[in-house]
Amino acid sequence: MPAAVPKPRARKDLSAPSPWAGRRRPRAARALKREAVILAAARAFRARGYHNTSLDDLAASLKVTKPTLYIYVPNKEAILFECFRAGIDPLLQTLDECERAGGPARERLFAFIRGYAAAIVGDFGWCMLRAEDQHLGAAMSRRIKLLKAGIDKRMRALIEAGVADGSIRDCDSRMTAFALAGALNWMGHWYREDAALEPREIADRFIDVFNRGLRGRD
Amino acid sequence: MPAAVPKPRARKDLSAPSPWAGRRRPRAARALKREAVILAAARAFRARGYHNTSLDDLAASLKVTKPTLYIYVPNKEAILFECFRAGIDPLLQTLDECERAGGPARERLFAFIRGYAAAIVGDFGWCMLRAEDQHLGAAMSRRIKLLKAGIDKRMRALIEAGVADGSIRDCDSRMTAFALAGALNWMGHWYREDAALEPREIADRFIDVFNRGLRGRD
Repeated sequence: MPAAVPKPRARKDLSAPSPWAGRRRPRAARALKREAVILAAARAFRARGYHNTSLDDLAASLKVTKPTLYIYVPNKEAILFECFRAGIDPLLQTLDECERAGGPARERLFAFIRGYAAAIVGDFGWCMLRAEDQHLGAAMSRRIKLLKAGIDKRMRALIEAGVADGSIRDCDSRMTAFALAGALNWMGHWYREDAALEPREIADRFIDVFNRGLRGRD
Repeated sequence: MPAAVPKPRARKDLSAPSPWAGRRRPRAARALKREAVILAAARAFRARGYHNTSLDDLAASLKVTKPTLYIYVPNKEAILFECFRAGIDPLLQTLDECERAGGPARERLFAFIRGYAAAIVGDFGWCMLRAEDQHLGAAMSRRIKLLKAGIDKRMRALIEAGVADGSIRDCDSRMTAFALAGALNWMGHWYREDAALEPREIADRFIDVFNRGLRGRD
């Protein structure tokens, strides 16, 4: 039985009341506002690129002043990092679940692939994929690389568990993980919201290719 | 028999005499100098990113003045496009050869994959992959998208030819082409010159995964 995949984070409705309107308990209100900043930034970075988006643009899109932004985030690089983290959080959750689930590791790997496809096309997918390429400071680059390397390592471990339990044939787990991650990450490039297929269907077609291979008659 | 793969473009030796030194026939000299500008730019863009590389940096790296650069190229965007074209040229050549070659289409697809892997790790691989993401002008973006879409279409046609000749099992050619291109393009992210495997070996391991699939015991 396939392992359960957590639902992708629901898309926030930007037409909902601004978190800067109305009264709320201060801590909850602050967290909500911070989340709104991160989401607006993720959408702006994806639409215009990180370097082409200024904090002024971001403040304007949220109808606040730039000093107001600084209440929630220290600088643009930190915002990008938060967007990156919002992207990988559901991936890490899915990995936790796939690691804990019982059954053949191949099915658990495929469950992870479905979660991955959903994350890639979500609001934070672009930042998750592209944060590392934005020529950030050394410390920030290192954090991002470490987090990504952790995901890669856990993906390989799932493949190796599959080889060990016999559900996956003997293969180069490193190259296989790269091939899988590459196929999925490339979705961020070609997938648009008006795409004919849902992320789940795309994942299933990828899984079919990776599972059965392309070989026809020999 | 696998179709022939053209050798990847030989890596230029930057320690060779500068094309700005010595005497040559004017047209040949101009072409050489232009090529040196494109190569230096491709390396700078890959190392520092497109937006972080100025024409001043580029002129300094070539030990010429910025006005000298303008003799060979009109602007930075045009240089990026030339770098992109230098990246896809060997791919288009390989596609021509794979399409013309005889034999099962699966083998011809795999020959293309080997040529693609070589191109990705070459000097122009970064520009080939990333030119489109640099938020260029609309006309330039359109040219790049069209050229990439052409490659994608020809890859799908190779897959469909394989389904038709029986060498590839019936599959979703669009999703299969995306999975293959994604696996290969992702190399540009993780592959470094000191990588343990040659591009040819990486391509062969990818081909193994895509050919036979991962399925172990059911």
